[in-house]
Amino acid sequence: MMMKTILYPEPSNWAALSLRPQKEAADLDSIVRNVFDAVKRKGDEALLHYTLKFDGVKLSSLTPEKSLPESCFTSVSPALREAIRLSAGNIELFHSSQKDDVKVVETSPGVFCRTESRPVEKVGLYIPGGTAPLFSTVLMLAIPARLAGCREVILCTPPRADGSIDPSILYAAMITGVTSIYNIGGIQAIAAMTFGTETVPAVYKIFGPGNQYVTAAKQEATRAGVAIDLPAGPSEVLVIADSTSNPEFVAADLLSQAEHGEDSQVMLVSTDVAVVEKVLLALERELAWLPRRTIAATALEKSRAVILASHDECISFSNMYAPEHLIIATENAADLVGGVMNAGSVFLGQYSCESAGDYASGTNHTLPTGGFARSYSGVSLQSFIKRITIQEVSPAGLKNIGQAVITMAAEEGLEAHAEAVRTRLNFLRYV
Amino acid sequence: MMMKTILYPEPSNWAALSLRPQKEAADLDSIVRNVFDAVKRKGDEALLHYTLKFDGVKLSSLTPEKSLPESCFTSVSPALREAIRLSAGNIELFHSSQKDDVKVVETSPGVFCRTESRPVEKVGLYIPGGTAPLFSTVLMLAIPARLAGCREVILCTPPRADGSIDPSILYAAMITGVTSIYNIGGIQAIAAMTFGTETVPAVYKIFGPGNQYVTAAKQEATRAGVAIDLPAGPSEVLVIADSTSNPEFVAADLLSQAEHGEDSQVMLVSTDVAVVEKVLLALERELAWLPRRTIAATALEKSRAVILASHDECISFSNMYAPEHLIIATENAADLVGGVMNAGSVFLGQYSCESAGDYASGTNHTLPTGGFARSYSGVSLQSFIKRITIQEVSPAGLKNIGQAVITMAAEEGLEAHAEAVRTRLNFLRYV
Repeated sequence: MMMKTILYPEPSNWAALSLRPQKEAADLDSIVRNVFDAVKRKGDEALLHYTLKFDGVKLSSLTPEKSLPESCFTSVSPALREAIRLSAGNIELFHSSQKDDVKVVETSPGVFCRTESRPVEKVGLYIPGGTAPLFSTVLMLAIPARLAGCREVILCTPPRADGSIDPSILYAAMITGVTSIYNIGGIQAIAAMTFGTETVPAVYKIFGPGNQYVTAAKQEATRAGVAIDLPAGPSEVLVIADSTSNPEFVAADLLSQAEHGEDSQVMLVSTDVAVVEKVLLALERELAWLPRRTIAATALEKSRAVILASHDECISFSNMYAPEHLIIATENAADLVGGVMNAGSVFLGQYSCESAGDYASGTNHTLPTGGFARSYSGVSLQSFIKRITIQEVSPAGLKNIGQAVITMAAEEGLEAHAEAVRTRLNFLRYV
Repeated sequence: MMMKTILYPEPSNWAALSLRPQKEAADLDSIVRNVFDAVKRKGDEALLHYTLKFDGVKLSSLTPEKSLPESCFTSVSPALREAIRLSAGNIELFHSSQKDDVKVVETSPGVFCRTESRPVEKVGLYIPGGTAPLFSTVLMLAIPARLAGCREVILCTPPRADGSIDPSILYAAMITGVTSIYNIGGIQAIAAMTFGTETVPAVYKIFGPGNQYVTAAKQEATRAGVAIDLPAGPSEVLVIADSTSNPEFVAADLLSQAEHGEDSQVMLVSTDVAVVEKVLLALERELAWLPRRTIAATALEKSRAVILASHDECISFSNMYAPEHLIIATENAADLVGGVMNAGSVFLGQYSCESAGDYASGTNHTLPTGGFARSYSGVSLQSFIKRITIQEVSPAGLKNIGQAVITMAAEEGLEAHAEAVRTRLNFLRYV
């Protein structure tokens, strides 16, 4: 059978059970640095060169797609356009709620502090090509970018064989206000957005998923001073199930994660041996007809079912694993969520399937993987915003905190810091 | 004279005027990787080895400081303790205001989404040694860590010559609830917090400033899967002054930045030539008596005074520079702040000196430098928190968004995603 079942492991073994499949540690650094160096020096010429070399596509031009081509209307079915609009509406509604209010705090009398939000002015979205056009990721990145007020929202995605861009990606980009779109993918796209070329503008922050080359390129972009959304990695789900869970639903959720890629991982954590057995049977049955069954089966081989003694232990195990997606498919799901410390996005109850969040519930599907949920949040409106602190100190305020500043600055050996206060306090003595 | 004055530069020249002093691009990667590798393999033994090698200190033990030693009370003056407590109170008040409320959004009928905050459970604070003990940075990092609810807050700081830790750092750590303190600095401290050793626990996120070695080590920590607060760099200030500004105050603020380090940069941007001339004279006068005058003079040599035609141009120039600290010392300071797009922290008016924010206004002094204010925020409560999204989809909710999910998943070639919805909708047809 595919998933390995582990019965009542000791807590001392949980860390080992939380390990992700080891990646082959291909050192991509030299490839990435060569491409970055070439794009920095040669600009568009390097983009054309690497698109031919890596993607096998000879581009006639890099002219960005600036206006909505007719093909968006003719090639994207009305049903898909309607689905995209429903999803976009929910994503917009949820991300709008993440706006911060400005609260002015008078920390000492006469000392007024506040935080104001400003958009990252120029952002770049990377949308992978590969087996299918991920127009849903366009929605997840471009909608909060527009809500944040980003001035330039550019998008890079690998060209199809004829050099064009998939119409569903174009459609999603157009309705979300992406300002320009480029048919460039892979390392060279990340390098282009890092340095800028004759055609592609440089940006301040790069978002979006990708394979190991794109991930390594985003890491290199940070060395060049460009921010990134998240360290990316293979997708994963952890499902907590008990005797009340529907095994068919659980199996369907595990498969919807497993089909993402051979390096995906799914974890089933349960208080009930019987339900796990039923889930495993359902998995075998459902796998048989799945178009992506080879991918899913490979992912399941690296996956685990863990039986634990209580719901609390299930939550503790999940916290150690820190899943990208956590489905709590138990009776008392809402009661358990308070104990969740580390997770990207949580799905509560029998009907909150992961695919709902992947597409249409309104939450973001760009989430921390590989245990990064211990320290990172998923993409949100805040990912496109900087928080600037602002302070206004009145003469009375400076009198209230000035001596503390002078004392601390002097102790740290920073006399000019102290003097900036003294000069002002002296002046105030004579006005 | 020290600062170079540029009169009415063309906007096309602003980018060049916004450049930071070039760092000597020492490639520290191999040193950093060697230390990381040694600490990962040999743990404490490597920490003792590198502390002797790099810091010249032979440590008798790595036992952390766990309880407040007597020396905190005897060596830290009552005036300093009072100053630290005032500062800590203001920092706590301001950072408390950054807590998020949970807002539940019903994105489609029956689809409930919300965001909940959770602390990063284990954080490591790095406090540099060097010319003075930076106890103020302890306050800036440990207070939001405690407010966020971080379970483990560990602190590493280089040992003094006798292996001990400065009492003012100990005092600040103790009153802010740091859970353990280690007398280790530099690359080896960052490596210890990344991998954990027999004595030092591994953490999920590392905070704090440092020299180029520490900065390179923090970059290496991200490659090992540990998050960091910010890419660090030399400190800087940009002051916007007009004919109403007090030249003595402006000069004092420029000096308080310049004394930080020889690689610091200060920028004066003004609509008024006369005030700039007065500031330059005041700088010369004040520099003469400053204890750190050699450092400050070197920093000033790399600094600039730029004369522009209007307040709006001053703000535009500042946005291009993206200063860590922005002082708007003009008459209408509060009216200009709306135009500020890129800055770490803003100081409004004649009495809001940078040193107030460095120590005691309540805002955080860990801020983005080197132009990173274009894409990064300074440290805040949010830096110690992850935002987890939570969705609860009712049966009615799934009926409302299910078809959109099925349509989009099928288009992206992810049939199992669609099936997870279909299975549930089929089930609901029969209950």
